[in-house]
Parts: sequence; structure tokens; C-alpha cells
Amino acid sequence: MNSNKQNIIETFKDIQNHICNGLKDLTNQNFEEDKWKYNQGEGGGITRIFSDGPIEKAGVNFSSLSGNLSEKIGKNIIGKGKKFFATGVSLVIHPDNPFIPTIHMNIRYIERNNKCWFGGGIDLTPFYIEDHDIKNFHKKLKNICDKHPVANYYEFKKHCDDYFFIKHRNEARGVGGIFFDYLEKNFDQTFNFVKDVGYNFNDIYIPIFKNYKDKKFSTNNKKFQLYRRGRYVEFNLVYDRGTLFGLETNGRIESILMSLPPLTSWKYNWKPIQNSKEENLYKQIIPRDWISS
Amino acid sequence: MNSNKQNIIETFKDIQNHICNGLKDLTNQNFEEDKWKYNQGEGGGITRIFSDGPIEKAGVNFSSLSGNLSEKIGKNIIGKGKKFFATGVSLVIHPDNPFIPTIHMNIRYIERNNKCWFGGGIDLTPFYIEDHDIKNFHKKLKNICDKHPVANYYEFKKHCDDYFFIKHRNEARGVGGIFFDYLEKNFDQTFNFVKDVGYNFNDIYIPIFKNYKDKKFSTNNKKFQLYRRGRYVEFNLVYDRGTLFGLETNGRIESILMSLPPLTSWKYNWKPIQNSKEENLYKQIIPRDWISS
Repeated sequence: MNSNKQNIIETFKDIQNHICNGLKDLTNQNFEEDKWKYNQGEGGGITRIFSDGPIEKAGVNFSSLSGNLSEKIGKNIIGKGKKFFATGVSLVIHPDNPFIPTIHMNIRYIERNNKCWFGGGIDLTPFYIEDHDIKNFHKKLKNICDKHPVANYYEFKKHCDDYFFIKHRNEARGVGGIFFDYLEKNFDQTFNFVKDVGYNFNDIYIPIFKNYKDKKFSTNNKKFQLYRRGRYVEFNLVYDRGTLFGLETNGRIESILMSLPPLTSWKYNWKPIQNSKEENLYKQIIPRDWISS
Repeated sequence: MNSNKQNIIETFKDIQNHICNGLKDLTNQNFEEDKWKYNQGEGGGITRIFSDGPIEKAGVNFSSLSGNLSEKIGKNIIGKGKKFFATGVSLVIHPDNPFIPTIHMNIRYIERNNKCWFGGGIDLTPFYIEDHDIKNFHKKLKNICDKHPVANYYEFKKHCDDYFFIKHRNEARGVGGIFFDYLEKNFDQTFNFVKDVGYNFNDIYIPIFKNYKDKKFSTNNKKFQLYRRGRYVEFNLVYDRGTLFGLETNGRIESILMSLPPLTSWKYNWKPIQNSKEENLYKQIIPRDWISS
């Protein structure tokens, strides 16, 4: 293994630790840890799960593995050849309190033949949120991007809006964030950017969590959260490339599906009451420029 | 419209009524009805929803519509040409009591160019069930098939086991039933068989429902039901051809996804306790011959 690869793996493991320590300090919950081997090739991962507390369910996963791509998957990504190596950190946090948004973050590094690239992103899926929190979230992401010549906030923000879109609902999954893939130019600069995304996760999310974690919520607030979590499931199982990649490559199913919510509901043809806080969310998730607005 | 088609449509509507009346008598719940138009072509449907009672959620849908197939869908079904006509009844019932199984039934008639065919099936997804109930369920299906020269129980049973299989879990969705498609020979005989499936639904399912509807259940029983419902969601969103056909043809989303459970949970890496009733289900859903065993 070359030193770049080893360096990325160690850094990604450190980012997993950094995030898990942040979450432990935040809620005093301890994670359950599973070390697993990839049974379709070499390598494996470390899955950490927080549950049954202020964090109703969260999975923070590190993996580093190599194997062979199926023809179907091979066709849909860049590069040539069957062999691949992939390492990454991915997480989804489903808080108990509906006033705290669900969040997803992922950073990854992939090699195929003589090609290698970074990808990843952060996006926020709120139920009840104030506009200034969304603005602040986007501003923090823009600040990170602005520090790195390889990163363009507006481009990555648009990519995120396009990607996290639930076509069959004609709805965005949430209020977006940044999403990037196939960053293959200038290894060092890109790695620095990806590290910054990973190490800044706590600073981006934990203040929002703290701000709302003691806010009282009603049964109706909770019901709305469970209902909206249904959209998360729909997106992840129908469209998410990471999930489908995992299913297609016979990945470790519990780690792939750790992103699914703890409790979810579907209600036929449900519509929010006019001018309610619930209806407001449907307006907030329409993609827009959160920086200059 | 030719008289065959009109006859099928009227019969399918009558089957929807027959089933809905059976369910109303069973639980004294009233359905909520939605008449809708297919906005990508002609026709539409009648969706009926039972909820918030002994039937926690059920959708019984009739539709009759025509339009154009996308290239992707067109490639995956028999026949040639873009134009299609489809009519059918489909239902999924999610009972509140975990001792009552979830059930799915579907009958449909499709035309494409000069080809036309029937398809459909019934399959049972229990949480806690006695072997004799499964045997009885399969015997009733075999009795129906045995009356019709176009139907072969063993062939349709195998087709069902193959189809309702959750590949990424290496698990069957439930205890199977019958599944058939592309029945295009001998219109009258096939229509008679399909009618028999539809009109016999109540006789197949309602006795099981009645038998267990007053059985007391614990929080753990309910939790197990919610957990297993997660598998139902995974199957429907990742594999179900009807669902994917609906999403691809921009069908009416609320009617397509009415099959999704009212309340569902995912728990990381959950395993049943050895020799528990929950573990027993995992043995029962391994496909086997329920008739001669």
C-alpha cells in the first residue's frame, strides 16, 4: 500500500473518532461498535451506532476495502478495470427531538486502475427549522469551500440540490448543503479540503443540536418527523448511489442500511395544514441561494 | 373499447367493492376514497384507504389507464410498441395486531400492441404465525389453481418464492403464496382464474384476521412487527416491479406507495433471541412445500 493511501485511511479513522467523541460529549450516549470484514474482497470497517437517547439513532461508519466491481457498477463510474479500492467515513444522525434536523455527511476516496478521486458531502434534512439556521449552515459550508482552491461552494451546492432530489415526489430531501464527486486533480489540495469537511462536521452540526435539544415538542411534532423520515427512506432506497452501490457489491448490509431511521411512518395522501409550521418546511426545501438571500 | 376490456374493468371494480365490503364488515372501519386521473395519459383510478383501527392501514386500489411506456420499461416487458393499457386491483393490508399477517393481492390485465395478458398474485407476510395457518393458506390457493386449466399452483408458488425475495437480506419477504405473469393463452379460461383469485381473497384472508384479532399482544410483539415491516419497505422500494413501474411511468405516487406500512422501524443489526417466537419466523419464511409437509 502506498503512503498516500495509508495516510488517508489513518486520517479517515481519526475523523470518525473526532466525530464520535463530539457526539458522546454532546449527549452522554455511548456508541456500540462493530468491526467487520468485507466478505467479497479485502478489508472491512468499523461501524459505530448511537441509539435510544437524544440521538434516537446514528450510524458513523468507517470502511476501507478492495474488491471487484460488477459490470453494472463499473459502467456507471469513471475509470476502467474491475478492481477497486474505497475508503470513507459516512454518517447519518436521526435526533429524537423533531426540532433538530437529521444530517448526513460522507467523505470518500476511491481508486480504480490508474485513476483515483475524492468525493463526499454534507446535507441537512430538517423538520422544523428557522431560516437563519439554514443560512448559517450554508455559510459555514461556503467558508470551508472558500479556503480551498479545489472547492467551489456554488457548484457543490447545486450538485447537492440536484442529487438529493426525490424525483417521484418532486421534492428536495432537505435544505441541501454541498456534494462533490470525482475530484481527481491536485491530490494534496483535494485531500486538505476533504479533511476540512470531516474535521469541521462537529462545528457545523453540534451547535444546531445544542440549540434545540431541550425544546419541548408535541406528539404532532413527533408525528411530522416520523412522516418526513419516510421521504428519507424513499430517497435512500430508490436513488442513493452509495446505498445501491453497497447492495450491488454485496456490501455489509447492516452498515449500508444503518442510515435508515429508527421509527418512520407513511400516511396516505397527507398534506400539511395551510400556513402551518409543517407547510413552511415544504417552502424551505425548495432550492434557493441561502447565502445572498 | 372492445367488450372484453369493458368486461374486465367492470369485474375488477366489482372485486374492489367485494373486498372493501368484506373488510368493512370485518372491522367496522370505513374507507376513505380518492378518485384520481392519470395525468400522463388517459384513465385513472379509485384508491380506498382503511386506517387507524384493527386495520392499521390498508390500501385497496383499482385503476384503469392507458399511456406510453418509457424505453426502459418497454424493454423489460413483453410485446412491442409504446402504447399500453393496464387495469388492475391491488391491495396491501397492514393489521394493527402483530398476530395477524400482512397480506398483498394483485390482479391485472395489460395490453400492448396486439399482445394482452393477465398477471397477479397473493402472498402472506406474517410476524407470528402457526404452521397450520400457512398450510391452510397455501391449500386454499392450490384449490383455486386446481380448478383452472391455465393455473399451476406449484409453478406459481415457485414464481412467488423467487419474486418476493429480498436479495440483500438473503431472506424471503414472507411465507409466499402464488404469483403469475404473462398469462396470454386462452383469454376466457385465464380471466376465469383471475376472477377466482380476486373473489376468493376475503375467504382466504378474513378467517385468519378473525382468528387473531382479539389476541392480546405485548410491546415486544408490536416492536417485532414494526421491525419486520422494514423488510416490506425494503422489498417494495428496491425490487417491486409494480412500484418501480409506477415510479418510472410517473404514476400517481400516493396510490403507488399506499402499500408502505403506517409505522416502521429499523434497528441496527438486530437479531432474534435463540428459540424465541421471533426466531421461529426466520425458519418459517424459508421457502418449502407447505402442501405435502
